[in-house]
Amino acid sequence: MTFHKAKKAVIIAEKILTPKILDIIESSGARGYTVVPAGGKGAHHQHYTSERASVVDDFSTVRIEVIVKNKSIAEEIGSKIVEECFNKYSGIVYLEDVEVIRAEKFNGE
Amino acid sequence: MTFHKAKKAVIIAEKILTPKILDIIESSGARGYTVVPAGGKGAHHQHYTSERASVVDDFSTVRIEVIVKNKSIAEEIGSKIVEECFNKYSGIVYLEDVEVIRAEKFNGE
Amino acid sequence: MTFHKAKKAVIIAEKILTPKILDIIESSGARGYTVVPAGGKGAHHQHYTSERASVVDDFSTVRIEVIVKNKSIAEEIGSKIVEECFNKYSGIVYLEDVEVIRAEKFNGE
Repeated sequence: MTFHKAKKAVIIAEKILTPKILDIIESSGARGYTVVPAGGKGAHHQHYTSERASVVDDFSTVRIEVIVKNKSIAEEIGSKIVEECFNKYSGIVYLEDVEVIRAEKFNGE
Repeated sequence: MTFHKAKKAVIIAEKILTPKILDIIESSGARGYTVVPAGGKGAHHQHYTSERASVVDDFSTVRIEVIVKNKSIAEEIGSKIVEECFNKYSGIVYLEDVEVIRAEKFNGE
Repeated sequence: MTFHKAKKAVIIAEKILTPKILDIIESSGARGYTVVPAGGKGAHHQHYTSERASVVDDFSTVRIEVIVKNKSIAEEIGSKIVEECFNKYSGIVYLEDVEVIRAEKFNGE
């Protein structure tokens, strides 16, 4: 099988923001995403999770990842999420290069 | 310490496929793997998780990652999983470049 | 928005090591981290999770990720964790290249 270059955007955010983030992802044309429960500490505002002791067991944060064919779409998703979600709430977005099988399952036209 | 180039394969799949995927990973010679509970939406078939509202709390999906020294082994793992698991079920595989300490802990001969 | 190159360190370790690992991460100057519950199998010692059947549901492992601006800081975090935590316990550290928005949220001076 052939592997094709694609771009992954990862969003770490408070769980309460999930519906808004998924709206942005879906309206970008991305065809799938993965959500994982998380805890942790952010750079600003309050910690993601209120106390250090609860970081491991209190999953009030989500880690969302989405893969798209084109870098520009990944950047657009990332920029919109930062603009619309991370003024009031702590969170980060980062991009990574990946290789996928079955490129037709990812958008990017 | 020295860091060495290696390849990571990430598999997002329905939880029910976990034993079959781990068999493929172990028979490739990989010496370890990590499984994380997930929810999400796939490109085909049904959603990984049945309803949008339950994406965050109903973890019927798994995110499995495995690191091997050689790209060819990562590609073989990915191809086999797509061929043997993703005809009937939704799922994706992608590869990433990583750098590891203690390369002897990862296979690839 | 502009994306900036940064380095991500990912640590897979037994949950009991979390406080020690977070101490190392915080003392490196990193400004945030994300913790995700995990299960899996390690290369040495005992399995992360005691039995294959429980890999998916018994999350006695953690997957911690931290992003810093400089490769040298990521390498220092990784080396310290291996030296101080992975003599007696199973675990791995790997590094990845990422691109971040808002680089001021990540350390690296």
